[in-house]
Amino acid sequence: MDERLKRQMDFALEIDKEKNIFRQTHISGHGRNENDAEHAWHMAIMAYLLQEYSNEKIDVAKVMLMCLIHDIVEIDAGDTYAYDEEGLKTQKAREDAAKERIFSILPDDQKEKLMGLFDEFEAYETAEAKFAHAMDNIQPLMLNDSNGGADWREHQAKASLVYGRQGKTALGSQKLFDEVVDVLIKRNIENGNIKPE
Amino acid sequence: MDERLKRQMDFALEIDKEKNIFRQTHISGHGRNENDAEHAWHMAIMAYLLQEYSNEKIDVAKVMLMCLIHDIVEIDAGDTYAYDEEGLKTQKAREDAAKERIFSILPDDQKEKLMGLFDEFEAYETAEAKFAHAMDNIQPLMLNDSNGGADWREHQAKASLVYGRQGKTALGSQKLFDEVVDVLIKRNIENGNIKPE
Repeated sequence: MDERLKRQMDFALEIDKEKNIFRQTHISGHGRNENDAEHAWHMAIMAYLLQEYSNEKIDVAKVMLMCLIHDIVEIDAGDTYAYDEEGLKTQKAREDAAKERIFSILPDDQKEKLMGLFDEFEAYETAEAKFAHAMDNIQPLMLNDSNGGADWREHQAKASLVYGRQGKTALGSQKLFDEVVDVLIKRNIENGNIKPE
Repeated sequence: MDERLKRQMDFALEIDKEKNIFRQTHISGHGRNENDAEHAWHMAIMAYLLQEYSNEKIDVAKVMLMCLIHDIVEIDAGDTYAYDEEGLKTQKAREDAAKERIFSILPDDQKEKLMGLFDEFEAYETAEAKFAHAMDNIQPLMLNDSNGGADWREHQAKASLVYGRQGKTALGSQKLFDEVVDVLIKRNIENGNIKPE
Protein backbone atom coordinates (compact mmCIF):
# COMPACT_ATOMS: atom_id res chain seq x y z
CA MET A 1 0.00 0.00 0.00
CA ASP A 2 1.49 3.37 -0.88
CA GLU A 3 2.16 5.95 1.84
CA ARG A 4 -0.73 8.25 0.89
CA LEU A 5 -3.31 5.48 0.91
CA LYS A 6 -1.88 4.09 4.13
CA ARG A 7 -2.38 7.44 5.88
CA GLN A 8 -5.93 7.70 4.58
CA MET A 9 -6.78 4.20 5.80
CA ASP A 10 -5.08 4.86 9.17
CA PHE A 11 -7.25 7.95 9.60
CA ALA A 12 -10.37 6.02 8.58
CA LEU A 13 -9.61 3.45 11.27
CA GLU A 14 -8.69 6.07 13.89
CA ILE A 15 -12.01 7.89 13.61
CA ASP A 16 -13.83 4.65 14.36
CA LYS A 17 -13.17 5.62 17.99
CA GLU A 18 -15.78 8.36 17.69
CA LYS A 19 -18.37 5.59 18.10
CA ASN A 20 -17.21 5.26 21.70
CA ILE A 21 -17.75 8.91 22.59
CA PHE A 22 -21.15 9.13 24.23
CA ARG A 23 -23.17 12.30 24.57
CA GLN A 24 -25.62 13.37 27.26
CA THR A 25 -28.46 13.14 24.76
CA HIS A 26 -30.48 9.93 24.60
CA ILE A 27 -31.77 8.43 21.37
CA SER A 28 -35.53 8.31 20.76
CA GLY A 29 -37.80 5.79 22.48
CA HIS A 30 -36.09 6.56 25.82
CA GLY A 31 -33.06 4.72 24.47
CA ARG A 32 -29.39 4.69 25.43
CA ASN A 33 -27.05 7.66 25.20
CA GLU A 34 -26.20 8.72 21.70
CA ASN A 35 -22.64 8.58 20.39
CA ASP A 36 -20.84 11.22 18.36
CA ALA A 37 -20.72 9.24 15.12
CA GLU A 38 -24.45 8.61 14.91
CA HIS A 39 -25.15 12.20 16.03
CA ALA A 40 -23.02 13.44 13.10
CA TRP A 41 -24.79 11.07 10.69
CA HIS A 42 -28.16 12.40 11.84
CA MET A 43 -27.07 16.04 11.51
CA ALA A 44 -25.76 15.52 7.98
CA ILE A 45 -29.03 14.02 6.75
CA MET A 46 -31.02 16.77 8.49
CA ALA A 47 -28.82 19.39 6.81
CA TYR A 48 -29.72 17.90 3.46
CA LEU A 49 -33.46 17.67 4.25
CA LEU A 50 -33.77 21.14 5.76
CA GLN A 51 -31.40 23.09 3.51
CA GLU A 52 -34.26 25.15 2.07
CA TYR A 53 -34.67 26.89 5.45
CA SER A 54 -31.14 28.29 5.64
CA ASN A 55 -31.16 32.09 6.01
CA GLU A 56 -28.35 32.33 3.47
CA LYS A 57 -27.50 30.36 0.35
CA ILE A 58 -25.38 27.36 1.32
CA ASP A 59 -23.20 24.70 -0.29
CA VAL A 60 -25.05 21.79 1.28
CA ALA A 61 -22.35 19.23 0.48
CA LYS A 62 -19.92 21.35 2.46
CA VAL A 63 -22.37 21.59 5.36
CA MET A 64 -22.81 17.81 5.34
CA LEU A 65 -19.06 17.14 5.44
CA MET A 66 -18.73 19.73 8.20
CA CYS A 67 -21.43 17.93 10.18
CA LEU A 68 -19.75 14.55 9.66
CA ILE A 69 -16.35 15.65 11.00
CA HIS A 70 -17.25 18.37 13.53
CA ASP A 71 -16.85 16.13 16.60
CA ILE A 72 -13.74 14.16 15.60
CA VAL A 73 -11.62 16.01 18.19
CA GLU A 74 -13.77 14.49 20.92
CA ILE A 75 -11.98 11.18 20.34
CA ASP A 76 -9.26 12.66 22.57
CA ALA A 77 -11.06 15.57 24.22
CA GLY A 78 -14.31 13.82 25.13
CA ASP A 79 -17.81 15.27 24.87
CA THR A 80 -18.43 18.48 26.75
CA TYR A 81 -22.08 18.82 27.71
CA ALA A 82 -23.66 22.08 26.59
CA TYR A 83 -24.64 22.88 30.19
CA ASP A 84 -21.35 21.80 31.85
CA GLU A 85 -19.90 25.19 32.75
CA GLU A 86 -16.62 23.84 34.20
CA GLY A 87 -15.91 21.56 31.25
CA LEU A 88 -16.58 24.37 28.83
CA LYS A 89 -13.65 26.39 30.27
CA THR A 90 -11.01 23.83 29.19
CA GLN A 91 -12.80 22.60 26.06
CA LYS A 92 -10.87 24.75 23.57
CA ALA A 93 -7.39 23.69 24.73
CA ARG A 94 -8.32 20.01 24.86
CA GLU A 95 -9.85 20.12 21.41
CA ASP A 96 -6.95 22.03 19.83
CA ALA A 97 -4.46 19.36 20.86
CA ALA A 98 -6.78 16.63 19.60
CA LYS A 99 -7.29 18.40 16.30
CA GLU A 100 -3.56 18.54 15.62
CA ARG A 101 -2.96 14.90 16.50
CA ILE A 102 -5.88 13.37 14.67
CA PHE A 103 -5.92 15.35 11.42
CA SER A 104 -2.12 14.95 11.13
CA ILE A 105 -2.67 11.27 10.39
CA LEU A 106 -3.95 12.35 6.95
CA PRO A 107 -1.84 13.33 3.93
CA ASP A 108 -1.03 17.06 4.20
CA ASP A 109 -3.55 18.27 1.62
CA GLN A 110 -6.42 16.41 3.26
CA LYS A 111 -5.25 17.48 6.72
CA GLU A 112 -5.42 21.11 5.63
CA LYS A 113 -8.80 20.67 3.99
CA LEU A 114 -10.51 18.91 6.90
CA MET A 115 -8.85 21.02 9.58
CA GLY A 116 -9.93 24.10 7.67
CA LEU A 117 -13.48 22.84 7.60
CA PHE A 118 -13.34 22.08 11.30
CA ASP A 119 -12.02 25.59 12.05
CA GLU A 120 -14.70 27.11 9.83
CA PHE A 121 -17.36 25.31 11.84
CA GLU A 122 -15.87 26.50 15.11
CA ALA A 123 -15.58 30.11 13.91
CA TYR A 124 -19.35 30.23 13.35
CA GLU A 125 -19.09 32.89 10.65
CA THR A 126 -19.88 31.44 7.22
CA ALA A 127 -23.36 30.52 6.05
CA GLU A 128 -22.35 26.84 6.07
CA ALA A 129 -21.00 26.99 9.63
CA LYS A 130 -24.14 28.72 10.89
CA PHE A 131 -26.42 26.15 9.27
CA ALA A 132 -24.29 23.21 10.50
CA HIS A 133 -24.49 24.63 14.03
CA ALA A 134 -28.27 24.94 13.67
CA MET A 135 -28.35 21.19 12.96
CA ASP A 136 -26.03 20.54 15.92
CA ASN A 137 -28.53 22.38 18.12
CA ILE A 138 -31.82 21.14 16.68
CA GLN A 139 -30.96 17.44 16.45
CA PRO A 140 -30.59 16.86 20.23
CA LEU A 141 -33.51 19.21 20.94
CA MET A 142 -35.70 17.03 18.73
CA LEU A 143 -34.56 13.83 20.46
CA ASN A 144 -34.91 15.26 23.93
CA ASP A 145 -38.40 16.55 23.18
CA SER A 146 -39.37 13.13 21.78
CA ASN A 147 -38.29 11.59 25.10
CA GLY A 148 -40.53 13.84 27.18
CA GLY A 149 -37.67 16.20 28.01
CA ALA A 150 -35.94 13.57 30.18
CA ASP A 151 -32.45 15.02 29.61
CA TRP A 152 -33.55 18.50 30.66
CA ARG A 153 -35.26 17.09 33.71
CA GLU A 154 -32.17 15.17 34.72
CA HIS A 155 -29.98 18.28 34.45
CA GLN A 156 -32.68 20.58 35.87
CA ALA A 157 -32.12 22.81 32.86
CA LYS A 158 -33.29 26.40 33.11
CA ALA A 159 -35.07 28.17 30.25
CA SER A 160 -32.44 30.91 30.09
CA LEU A 161 -29.66 28.37 29.56
CA VAL A 162 -31.62 26.38 26.95
CA TYR A 163 -32.49 29.55 25.07
CA GLY A 164 -28.90 30.76 25.45
CA ARG A 165 -27.62 27.60 23.84
CA GLN A 166 -30.23 27.81 21.07
CA GLY A 167 -30.05 31.56 20.50
CA LYS A 168 -27.56 31.23 17.67
CA THR A 169 -29.69 28.62 15.91
CA ALA A 170 -31.56 31.56 14.38
CA LEU A 171 -28.31 32.70 12.75
CA GLY A 172 -28.52 29.58 10.59
CA SER A 173 -32.28 29.47 10.13
CA GLN A 174 -34.82 31.92 11.47
CA LYS A 175 -37.64 29.66 10.32
CA LEU A 176 -36.31 26.60 12.14
CA PHE A 177 -35.75 28.70 15.24
CA ASP A 178 -39.29 30.09 15.16
CA GLU A 179 -41.17 26.96 14.14
CA VAL A 180 -39.14 24.19 15.74
CA VAL A 181 -36.81 25.42 18.48
CA ASP A 182 -39.02 28.06 20.07
CA VAL A 183 -42.13 25.87 19.86
CA LEU A 184 -40.41 22.85 21.43
CA ILE A 185 -38.79 24.86 24.22
CA LYS A 186 -42.04 26.61 25.11
CA ARG A 187 -43.86 23.26 25.20
CA ASN A 188 -41.22 21.80 27.51
CA ILE A 189 -41.39 24.80 29.82
CA GLU A 190 -45.17 24.39 29.98
CA ASN A 191 -44.79 20.68 30.70
CA GLY A 192 -42.36 21.39 33.53
CA ASN A 193 -39.40 19.70 31.79
CA ILE A 194 -37.46 22.96 31.58
CA LYS A 195 -37.46 25.26 34.62
CA PRO A 196 -38.88 28.73 33.86
CA GLU A 197 -36.04 30.27 35.89
CA MET B 1 -45.38 24.20 12.02
CA ASP B 2 -46.38 23.96 8.36
CA GLU B 3 -47.17 20.57 6.83
CA ARG B 4 -43.99 20.35 4.76
CA LEU B 5 -41.69 21.08 7.69
CA LYS B 6 -43.68 18.72 9.89
CA ARG B 7 -43.12 15.84 7.46
CA GLN B 8 -39.41 16.62 7.25
CA MET B 9 -39.09 16.67 11.05
CA ASP B 10 -41.16 13.47 11.36
CA PHE B 11 -38.79 11.75 8.94
CA ALA B 12 -35.77 13.09 10.81
CA LEU B 13 -37.11 11.59 14.03
CA GLU B 14 -38.14 8.30 12.36
CA ILE B 15 -34.66 7.59 11.03
CA ASP B 16 -33.28 7.88 14.56
CA LYS B 17 -34.34 4.22 14.82
CA GLU B 18 -31.47 3.27 12.54
CA LYS B 19 -29.24 3.64 15.61
CA ASN B 20 -30.93 0.52 16.99
CA ILE B 21 -30.16 -1.67 13.98
CA PHE B 22 -27.02 -3.61 14.82
CA ARG B 23 -24.77 -5.26 12.29
CA GLN B 24 -22.63 -8.36 12.56
CA THR B 25 -19.50 -6.24 12.31
CA HIS B 26 -17.80 -5.14 15.52
CA ILE B 27 -16.21 -1.72 15.98
CA SER B 28 -12.44 -1.48 16.42
CA GLY B 29 -10.68 -2.38 19.65
CA HIS B 30 -12.75 -5.59 19.85
CA GLY B 31 -15.74 -3.40 20.67
CA ARG B 32 -19.49 -3.91 20.52
CA ASN B 33 -21.49 -4.56 17.36
CA GLU B 34 -21.74 -1.59 15.04
CA ASN B 35 -25.08 0.01 14.22
CA ASP B 36 -26.30 1.13 10.81
CA ALA B 37 -26.17 4.87 11.53
CA GLU B 38 -22.52 4.92 12.56
CA HIS B 39 -21.63 2.53 9.72
CA ALA B 40 -23.21 5.00 7.26
CA TRP B 41 -21.35 7.92 8.87
CA HIS B 42 -18.08 6.04 8.51
CA MET B 43 -18.74 5.14 4.86
CA ALA B 44 -19.60 8.74 3.95
CA ILE B 45 -16.34 10.10 5.37
CA MET B 46 -14.36 7.30 3.70
CA ALA B 47 -16.04 8.14 0.38
CA TYR B 48 -14.82 11.70 0.74
CA LEU B 49 -11.28 10.68 1.74
CA LEU B 50 -10.85 8.00 -0.91
CA GLN B 51 -12.69 9.62 -3.84
CA GLU B 52 -9.47 9.95 -5.85
CA TYR B 53 -9.37 6.16 -6.23
CA SER B 54 -12.74 5.80 -7.96
CA ASN B 55 -12.40 4.09 -11.35
CA GLU B 56 -14.80 6.64 -12.85
CA LYS B 57 -15.38 10.33 -12.23
CA ILE B 58 -17.91 10.71 -9.40
CA ASP B 59 -20.08 13.37 -7.79
CA VAL B 60 -18.75 12.77 -4.28
CA ALA B 61 -21.56 14.71 -2.58
CA LYS B 62 -24.03 12.33 -4.20
CA VAL B 63 -21.99 9.32 -3.08
CA MET B 64 -21.92 10.65 0.49
CA LEU B 65 -25.68 11.17 0.62
CA MET B 66 -26.15 7.71 -0.87
CA CYS B 67 -23.94 6.26 1.86
CA LEU B 68 -25.84 8.11 4.57
CA ILE B 69 -29.27 6.79 3.53
CA HIS B 70 -28.46 3.39 2.02
CA ASP B 71 -29.51 1.38 5.10
CA ILE B 72 -32.62 3.33 6.14
CA VAL B 73 -34.90 0.46 5.03
CA GLU B 74 -33.31 -1.74 7.68
CA ILE B 75 -35.31 0.17 10.30
CA ASP B 76 -38.16 -2.18 9.31
CA ALA B 77 -36.35 -4.93 7.42
CA GLY B 78 -33.43 -5.46 9.82
CA ASP B 79 -29.82 -6.09 8.89
CA THR B 80 -29.17 -9.06 6.64
CA TYR B 81 -25.66 -10.41 7.17
CA ALA B 82 -23.64 -10.69 3.99
CA TYR B 83 -23.10 -14.40 4.59
CA ASP B 84 -26.68 -15.26 5.70
CA GLU B 85 -27.90 -17.19 2.65
CA GLU B 86 -31.47 -17.72 3.95
CA GLY B 87 -32.00 -14.10 4.94
CA LEU B 88 -30.71 -12.93 1.61
CA LYS B 89 -33.60 -14.69 -0.18
CA THR B 90 -36.30 -12.51 1.45
CA GLN B 91 -34.22 -9.35 1.76
CA LYS B 92 -35.57 -7.62 -1.35
CA ALA B 93 -39.27 -7.96 -0.45
CA ARG B 94 -38.71 -6.85 3.14
CA GLU B 95 -36.70 -3.85 2.05
CA ASP B 96 -39.16 -2.77 -0.66
CA ALA B 97 -42.02 -2.53 1.84
CA ALA B 98 -39.82 -0.60 4.25
CA LYS B 99 -38.68 1.77 1.54
CA GLU B 100 -42.24 2.72 0.66
CA ARG B 101 -43.31 3.25 4.27
CA ILE B 102 -40.31 5.23 5.47
CA PHE B 103 -39.64 7.53 2.51
CA SER B 104 -43.39 8.30 2.27
CA ILE B 105 -43.10 10.26 5.50
CA LEU B 106 -41.25 12.94 3.49
CA PRO B 107 -42.82 15.59 1.25
CA ASP B 108 -43.30 14.08 -2.23
CA ASP B 109 -40.34 15.80 -3.91
CA GLN B 110 -37.91 14.66 -1.22
CA LYS B 111 -39.44 11.18 -1.16
CA GLU B 112 -38.77 10.87 -4.90
CA LYS B 113 -35.27 12.23 -4.59
CA LEU B 114 -34.14 9.99 -1.71
CA MET B 115 -35.95 6.90 -2.96
CA GLY B 116 -34.33 7.47 -6.34
CA LEU B 117 -30.93 7.65 -4.71
CA PHE B 118 -31.67 4.49 -2.74
CA ASP B 119 -32.73 2.67 -5.92
CA GLU B 120 -29.64 3.92 -7.73
CA PHE B 121 -27.46 2.45 -4.98
CA GLU B 122 -29.27 -0.87 -5.18
CA ALA B 123 -29.05 -1.02 -8.99
CA TYR B 124 -25.22 -0.91 -8.77
CA GLU B 125 -24.85 0.66 -12.21
CA THR B 126 -23.75 4.29 -11.92
CA ALA B 127 -20.24 5.37 -10.99
CA GLU B 128 -21.61 6.77 -7.71
CA ALA B 129 -23.40 3.54 -6.80
CA LYS B 130 -20.32 1.46 -7.53
CA PHE B 131 -18.10 3.65 -5.38
CA ALA B 132 -20.64 3.77 -2.53
CA HIS B 133 -20.80 -0.03 -2.61
CA ALA B 134 -17.01 -0.17 -2.49
CA MET B 135 -17.19 1.82 0.76
CA ASP B 136 -19.94 -0.47 2.06
CA ASN B 137 -17.61 -3.41 1.46
CA ILE B 138 -14.29 -1.94 2.58
CA GLN B 139 -15.47 -0.32 5.81
CA PRO B 140 -16.41 -3.58 7.60
CA LEU B 141 -13.40 -5.36 6.07
CA MET B 142 -11.14 -2.73 7.64
CA LEU B 143 -12.81 -3.08 11.05
CA ASN B 144 -12.83 -6.85 10.95
CA ASP B 145 -9.14 -6.96 9.99
CA SER B 146 -8.33 -4.52 12.82
CA ASN B 147 -10.00 -6.95 15.23
CA GLY B 148 -7.87 -9.90 14.18
CA GLY B 149 -10.59 -11.24 11.89
CA ALA B 150 -12.84 -12.15 14.82
CA ASP B 151 -16.06 -11.80 12.79
CA TRP B 152 -14.78 -14.12 10.06
CA ARG B 153 -13.64 -16.64 12.66
CA GLU B 154 -17.02 -16.59 14.37
CA HIS B 155 -18.84 -17.25 11.09
CA GLN B 156 -16.15 -19.64 9.82
CA ALA B 157 -16.10 -17.60 6.62
CA LYS B 158 -14.61 -19.22 3.54
CA ALA B 159 -12.30 -17.37 1.16
CA SER B 160 -14.60 -17.94 -1.81
CA LEU B 161 -17.52 -16.27 0.00
CA VAL B 162 -15.41 -13.34 1.20
CA TYR B 163 -13.98 -12.82 -2.26
CA GLY B 164 -17.45 -13.25 -3.75
CA ARG B 165 -18.81 -10.49 -1.56
CA GLN B 166 -15.83 -8.26 -2.34
CA GLY B 167 -15.56 -9.06 -6.04
CA LYS B 168 -17.65 -6.07 -7.04
CA THR B 169 -15.56 -3.70 -4.93
CA ALA B 170 -13.23 -3.53 -7.93
CA LEU B 171 -16.09 -2.10 -10.01
CA GLY B 172 -15.88 1.00 -7.83
CA SER B 173 -12.13 1.10 -7.34
CA GLN B 174 -9.58 -1.27 -8.81
CA LYS B 175 -6.84 0.34 -6.72
CA LEU B 176 -8.70 -0.12 -3.43
CA PHE B 177 -9.49 -3.70 -4.39
CA ASP B 178 -5.85 -4.46 -5.22
CA GLU B 179 -4.15 -2.57 -2.41
CA VAL B 180 -6.64 -2.87 0.45
CA VAL B 181 -9.20 -5.63 -0.08
CA ASP B 182 -6.99 -8.26 -1.67
CA VAL B 183 -4.11 -7.58 0.72
CA LEU B 184 -6.32 -7.80 3.83
CA ILE B 185 -8.12 -10.94 2.70
CA LYS B 186 -4.85 -12.72 1.83
CA ARG B 187 -3.40 -11.76 5.22
CA ASN B 188 -6.46 -13.15 7.00
CA ILE B 189 -6.31 -16.37 5.03
CA GLU B 190 -2.65 -16.75 6.01
CA ASN B 191 -3.48 -16.04 9.64
CA GLY B 192 -6.23 -18.68 9.63
CA ASN B 193 -9.06 -16.18 10.17
CA ILE B 194 -10.62 -16.97 6.79
CA LYS B 195 -10.81 -20.61 5.70
CA PRO B 196 -8.95 -21.27 2.43
CA GLU B 197 -11.89 -23.43 1.27
